[in-house]
Amino acid sequence: MNLKPRFIQITLFFVATTSLAAQDVVDDSLQLRDIYKTSLTNGKSYQWLDYLSNEIGGRLSGSLNAELAVEYTKSQLETLGLDRVWLQPVMVPKWVRGNPEFSYIETAPGQTIPVNLCALGGSVATPLEGIKAKVIEVQSVDEIKTMSRSEIEGKIVFLNRPMQADLISTFEAYGGCVNQRYNGAKEAAKLGALGTVVRSMNLRLDNLPHTGAMSYGDTAVKDRIPSAAISTNDAERLSGLLKLDPDIKFYFKQNCRQLKDVQSYNVIGEITGTQYPNQIIIVGAHLDSWDLGDGSHDDGAGCVQSMDVLRLLKQTGLRPNRTIRVVLFMNEENGLRGGLKYAKVAKQKGEKHIFALESDSGGFTPRGFSFDGPDYKISQILNWKSLFEPYLIHYFKKGGSGADIGPLKDESVVLAGLAPDSQRYFDHHHASNDTFDAVNKRELELGAATMTALVYLVDKYGFNSIETKKPLKD
Amino acid sequence: MNLKPRFIQITLFFVATTSLAAQDVVDDSLQLRDIYKTSLTNGKSYQWLDYLSNEIGGRLSGSLNAELAVEYTKSQLETLGLDRVWLQPVMVPKWVRGNPEFSYIETAPGQTIPVNLCALGGSVATPLEGIKAKVIEVQSVDEIKTMSRSEIEGKIVFLNRPMQADLISTFEAYGGCVNQRYNGAKEAAKLGALGTVVRSMNLRLDNLPHTGAMSYGDTAVKDRIPSAAISTNDAERLSGLLKLDPDIKFYFKQNCRQLKDVQSYNVIGEITGTQYPNQIIIVGAHLDSWDLGDGSHDDGAGCVQSMDVLRLLKQTGLRPNRTIRVVLFMNEENGLRGGLKYAKVAKQKGEKHIFALESDSGGFTPRGFSFDGPDYKISQILNWKSLFEPYLIHYFKKGGSGADIGPLKDESVVLAGLAPDSQRYFDHHHASNDTFDAVNKRELELGAATMTALVYLVDKYGFNSIETKKPLKD
Repeated sequence: MNLKPRFIQITLFFVATTSLAAQDVVDDSLQLRDIYKTSLTNGKSYQWLDYLSNEIGGRLSGSLNAELAVEYTKSQLETLGLDRVWLQPVMVPKWVRGNPEFSYIETAPGQTIPVNLCALGGSVATPLEGIKAKVIEVQSVDEIKTMSRSEIEGKIVFLNRPMQADLISTFEAYGGCVNQRYNGAKEAAKLGALGTVVRSMNLRLDNLPHTGAMSYGDTAVKDRIPSAAISTNDAERLSGLLKLDPDIKFYFKQNCRQLKDVQSYNVIGEITGTQYPNQIIIVGAHLDSWDLGDGSHDDGAGCVQSMDVLRLLKQTGLRPNRTIRVVLFMNEENGLRGGLKYAKVAKQKGEKHIFALESDSGGFTPRGFSFDGPDYKISQILNWKSLFEPYLIHYFKKGGSGADIGPLKDESVVLAGLAPDSQRYFDHHHASNDTFDAVNKRELELGAATMTALVYLVDKYGFNSIETKKPLKD
Repeated sequence: MNLKPRFIQITLFFVATTSLAAQDVVDDSLQLRDIYKTSLTNGKSYQWLDYLSNEIGGRLSGSLNAELAVEYTKSQLETLGLDRVWLQPVMVPKWVRGNPEFSYIETAPGQTIPVNLCALGGSVATPLEGIKAKVIEVQSVDEIKTMSRSEIEGKIVFLNRPMQADLISTFEAYGGCVNQRYNGAKEAAKLGALGTVVRSMNLRLDNLPHTGAMSYGDTAVKDRIPSAAISTNDAERLSGLLKLDPDIKFYFKQNCRQLKDVQSYNVIGEITGTQYPNQIIIVGAHLDSWDLGDGSHDDGAGCVQSMDVLRLLKQTGLRPNRTIRVVLFMNEENGLRGGLKYAKVAKQKGEKHIFALESDSGGFTPRGFSFDGPDYKISQILNWKSLFEPYLIHYFKKGGSGADIGPLKDESVVLAGLAPDSQRYFDHHHASNDTFDAVNKRELELGAATMTALVYLVDKYGFNSIETKKPLKD
């Protein structure tokens, strides 16, 4: 890849097709080059992630580790020479897993096969002695709704629909499956089930159970049933054994519970804009994680990338026109309290957020961005696509951004999500192998640079200059 | 990702901008959908790679494993119902590593630090007692050329230029470094060096030495000096210690050697074209590998993807117009004898190859293709880009294809290389961690589907229908 000729190509292209001045395009090309080079040769994201993952570890909301992560990231932001660094208090739920879960399939009295199982976040415990019952396998929550009480009462409901392997976006495959995990127990409880187990949200066949949030909705406390996930290999085995003998039993024991809400914090740092300090651009990610791994991909990667955006802007000599904030949100995984609190405070203060970018799809090679916002503003961003071409950033599509920034949505803000390669993400998501070794340094750094590049462009041009309001074509 | 609306978009685009009929575009969209779906839900590439990597292992030319791989892949191709499967004999060099290498840095008499070192492919052995000498560090082969005999004679030359981290393509970074490995010993020998050690071609800092081919050029046999690679961590350590004390010594011992050439084979399978059987399209990869790992990424992945191209064409009900061949080339790593032999035989037989596609850049998420051939033909391929968009295949660029198919180059053939994501490739390349666990099933299958899709299009449309010969713009 020879960068020089490419810059010239881009210049010509821009002159011909957009209103950006040729000099701007040259400047922007060089600035992006500097941002990527600095991230790849002098980035801090990987070093920060090493600490967050290996020295602190999993950071479930309300845990000691979550608070250590708040302290650590705040202290690191304070080394960057930002204009402000502060903690935003937020009360968060505190769910604890308790003792390690225990589970098996009983094919005959005394004949058992061990099962890799984990409680789902928010689930109640089993009785102290655990639950042992027959199993009814279903493929969806809707299937439960079509069933009679006699089919389900006194049984464990096993939700076993696999993620759809032929979808190219694994996030789409996840979206098509995850309601089994989230709503399964609520529906099964209505028909007298004793518990639910769900096939892990994982496209691979392996032995790792994947946790994640579930909800009882308006189910009365006394009617709540324990809910757990089993590994994909165990799901295949259980399903196969049920075909041989529908009377086999399943046992699981877990003593997780929901405690009282506790105090926690969003961690925020800011470079105040020189020209338009009241126009706010945020980059963010969530600092909490599940507890089984160390949360490197979900979402330690996004946190350290977001932190490095502000550092890379400074390292490459930029003084932003607008105010650039990094926000590390607490409690995305089981409550979204941090995102809700941030948006609420912003509204109370009358802050004008023009752009919010979240990284919460893993630290893999960046492919582009997804956007949510007015078409005429997204069209402006599409004009910058060619600047990203040398970095193999091709994907610029409307549709989705990030959970934490969602509450900022209004008729004018542009929300965006970094879109990394998704193929390996659900191999690790919410499981014990979401660990530092699964993150590649260069891929992480390319993501940080890609985010910084977009923030640089939004800061430089804003969204007000070319409001042609033409409909979005791409 | 909703495929239906996307197909409609593509249709409109094509009607407006190319000569392909709207019905063709719909058909092609559906065919590509079927190819990707079949590969992701019913592919064989991963299963084949499991066998090749875990049951056979590293397949250095001339080794027993290489012959086992010939037998295995031939037998698997024979299960696919192809029209012909055969072995093409080729004599290959046989270099053997011998006993495990041994190496250390001696900071003072009796004070040693162990070093992770491996002999380079083609190197001679050290004397039986090894070599211990002072070290002179250089940054390039050209630097050696500027030096005097007195600076180098009796020393070990240490070539320590790192791969350039700010290049987005790691293959470009490799290309800018690898002459240290290939030509270092030849140049150092001219000035009386006792041996050379090269920093491994690896962008990560870790403890694994990476082997690879080196050449003595026309150096007389008696003047050849042993050449080895050390891990990046060891290279950093050695360089740091040399700064403290330029008189420290380096020791290494290896007993590798070059034996006589032995008989081996290219493995070839073919579906004969129904309309134009004399127009040949090949997909290929190299079956040999280095010996330190099991050669999963380099190039087991390419072999099983190429095999699955023919299987996927059959599975999706296609009867090719042209002859489609899979070629598993022997001896890419240290001789290219398989590629040279295949091209020689093709020429002798007067075979007309219209298109050759190689997969030899790892089994990672496919990003697109690189091409080498007449611009007007590559322009035709660029017309198909939108068909690949739903699969996030964006990269279609002129520049390079694959080593094995290189000898087929003439004024009319189009050569192509699958271009997967390159970020992790050199973490594993030629090292002991080039193993099956580093390959992701979906990424491998997406690559096989992407290759199949392009072969389908080239087979359907050929290259003769729209020879507008307009210069290549992208």
